[in-house]
Amino acid sequence: MAYQVGVFNGDYIGPEIMAEALKILDVIAKKHNHQFDLTFLEASGEAFDKYGEHLPQHTLDKAAQCDALLKGPFGGPPEELNHPKWAGVEKGAILPLRKHFNLYTNLRETQVFDALRDLSPIKWDIVRGINVLIVRELTSGIYFGPKNNQVVDGERESSDLEVYRESEIRRIAKKAFEYAQNRNRKVTLVAKSNVLTSSVLWREVTAEVAKDYADVTLDYMHVDNASMQLILNPRQFDVILTNNIFGDILSDEASVLSGSIGLFPSASLGDTTLGLYEPIHGSAPSIAGKNIANPISTILSVALMLRYSFALHEEAASIERAVAEVLSKGHRTVDLVGPGQESANVVGTREMGDLIANEI
Amino acid sequence: MAYQVGVFNGDYIGPEIMAEALKILDVIAKKHNHQFDLTFLEASGEAFDKYGEHLPQHTLDKAAQCDALLKGPFGGPPEELNHPKWAGVEKGAILPLRKHFNLYTNLRETQVFDALRDLSPIKWDIVRGINVLIVRELTSGIYFGPKNNQVVDGERESSDLEVYRESEIRRIAKKAFEYAQNRNRKVTLVAKSNVLTSSVLWREVTAEVAKDYADVTLDYMHVDNASMQLILNPRQFDVILTNNIFGDILSDEASVLSGSIGLFPSASLGDTTLGLYEPIHGSAPSIAGKNIANPISTILSVALMLRYSFALHEEAASIERAVAEVLSKGHRTVDLVGPGQESANVVGTREMGDLIANEI
Ligand SMILES: CC(C)[C@H](C(=O)O)[C@@H](O)C(=O)O
Ligand SMILES: CC(C)[C@H](C(=O)O)[C@@H](O)C(=O)O
Repeated sequence: MAYQVGVFNGDYIGPEIMAEALKILDVIAKKHNHQFDLTFLEASGEAFDKYGEHLPQHTLDKAAQCDALLKGPFGGPPEELNHPKWAGVEKGAILPLRKHFNLYTNLRETQVFDALRDLSPIKWDIVRGINVLIVRELTSGIYFGPKNNQVVDGERESSDLEVYRESEIRRIAKKAFEYAQNRNRKVTLVAKSNVLTSSVLWREVTAEVAKDYADVTLDYMHVDNASMQLILNPRQFDVILTNNIFGDILSDEASVLSGSIGLFPSASLGDTTLGLYEPIHGSAPSIAGKNIANPISTILSVALMLRYSFALHEEAASIERAVAEVLSKGHRTVDLVGPGQESANVVGTREMGDLIANEI
Repeated sequence: MAYQVGVFNGDYIGPEIMAEALKILDVIAKKHNHQFDLTFLEASGEAFDKYGEHLPQHTLDKAAQCDALLKGPFGGPPEELNHPKWAGVEKGAILPLRKHFNLYTNLRETQVFDALRDLSPIKWDIVRGINVLIVRELTSGIYFGPKNNQVVDGERESSDLEVYRESEIRRIAKKAFEYAQNRNRKVTLVAKSNVLTSSVLWREVTAEVAKDYADVTLDYMHVDNASMQLILNPRQFDVILTNNIFGDILSDEASVLSGSIGLFPSASLGDTTLGLYEPIHGSAPSIAGKNIANPISTILSVALMLRYSFALHEEAASIERAVAEVLSKGHRTVDLVGPGQESANVVGTREMGDLIANEI
């Protein structure tokens, strides 16, 4: 059996870190006798240069033929954000890709590596051993609700609608409970039900879903409190279930616990096995082409792809073990060198890929 | 001249901590020969018990006669949230109070006390010396936009509208720049302009306002990134300007830097000198009536009232100095006892009030 993998290289550091991720995929293929057929897909800056659009139809068509999608970061440098090449990347490529493939479940798991304990801005006794899975709704809410710009009484007025239907909440709530069943059996719904009526619907529907998962505890927390508790006491969380915009904020915040956004992968899943796997960090234009970017987030995205789209659990785990092992031996890309780690062995993007490949 | 101060005691720990705040106000009155006339105002649980509503018209009428409002926390215990006494407190009292008095500017300043360095969950070299002022829009946006609940194709659908007009953005942006002029001359607008059209309007209007404040730098950050940067590198911020919902989340998150939400006051201001001053923490039902709640947030709210509503700058500063002094002498309410502070002198609510009063 050959697995069809669609690959978006991404912008700036994208191709560099993706090359290392594909190196790892190749190692897995050889070691376990799998065949991964790669299809390179054009989107974002690359597609804009060639076709004047960020996500051409032919890219979507080819992507639809794949079993899973691996994606590098999309986006340009802050100082060029008004340039047409970069201005529309989010609305022109990132969001349509999620919507087109109905990838309504976004998973981001934050954990801390013992080897990187000095890197976290948070005191070690607070973050030691934590593992928080954020289950974020990804294809609805204020990201996709109607937007409006008008002039009222001579002044500009702009609006975005936060809107959810019960079926959109129910399907992702079920996922959260299922993941919790294989973890520590606790789901914390995060919303703002004392102010938002859409949050009241989230509470109602999630409570209904909870009845089918008697072995899982459902907890509720307002988003403002959650943003505190994530830092004060992250160990209280197992699975956090939340909407698109709160998930955007909280998952970035949670990545801070580990000390580096360069470490964590994300999976975006729908009802089929076609998932999208990508690092949570951006395209880092300022360090592109220098062989210093950290490929770990993209390499761990490969692990998630193997697990969620191909059900290759042992292969996935072997990548994760290799990453932890390489870090525990003291190898670091430059972003992972924190105070007290000056003795670390600093390696480049390619060398980090090689080290992880050898470890597997 | 007599200053008219309206006082909302608040629920649960409210009356206890308010008593200490009023003790401090009395000390200031005697020391500086001022007259503060207190009017106790009924709202929240107290008003519900007597009148079946959370913010009776007579309360609003009396409040309107005051020069400033001091408020304790409103709200009931988590397990009674569906009880009519508590269910509607936010929409029935907190939000209408803000709206009625047009208190569109919410200020929350986070700083760290040297004496409490062991309390912060964040490493000391990251938070030492920080002072971040969050300027949050408080009377518009998704808190006050139209809400809708309907059944579509047989399923429940709920929505909340995030909506801003340019005048609502302009007036608070001006405030942010004015505060920055007296601080480190930097405003960071936090929004989500790559997704929300209302955030694009925030960027446009804020950039227009910035032209009148050539001595202040305007910076922009997406909210997801800001939620990371607040923890990774809070020292990069001076004034953060943001909308109602993002301000709710980020200001709670920022309070974590200091290690305790029991420390910081907030001011809600409009175009007149009538401001509302309150602690940012809740009513803590579980510790009510035990003389252990921390009154500092409410006491520092008095300082903000003296400064912003009455322009009594020296008096305000003397309260803030006294609080820092009492903390540096090792006195702590129980919430302020962190790891390594076991030798602290733990005092009760009243004793903390007395200590601060004596220090003034
Ligand atoms: C780039 C942006 C549109 C995106 C989002 O807001 O979802 C990003 O922040 C993310 O979290 O994947
Ligand atoms: C109680 C609630 C309505 C309120 C808000 O969301 O504004 C509170 O969280 C705050 O920040 O003052």
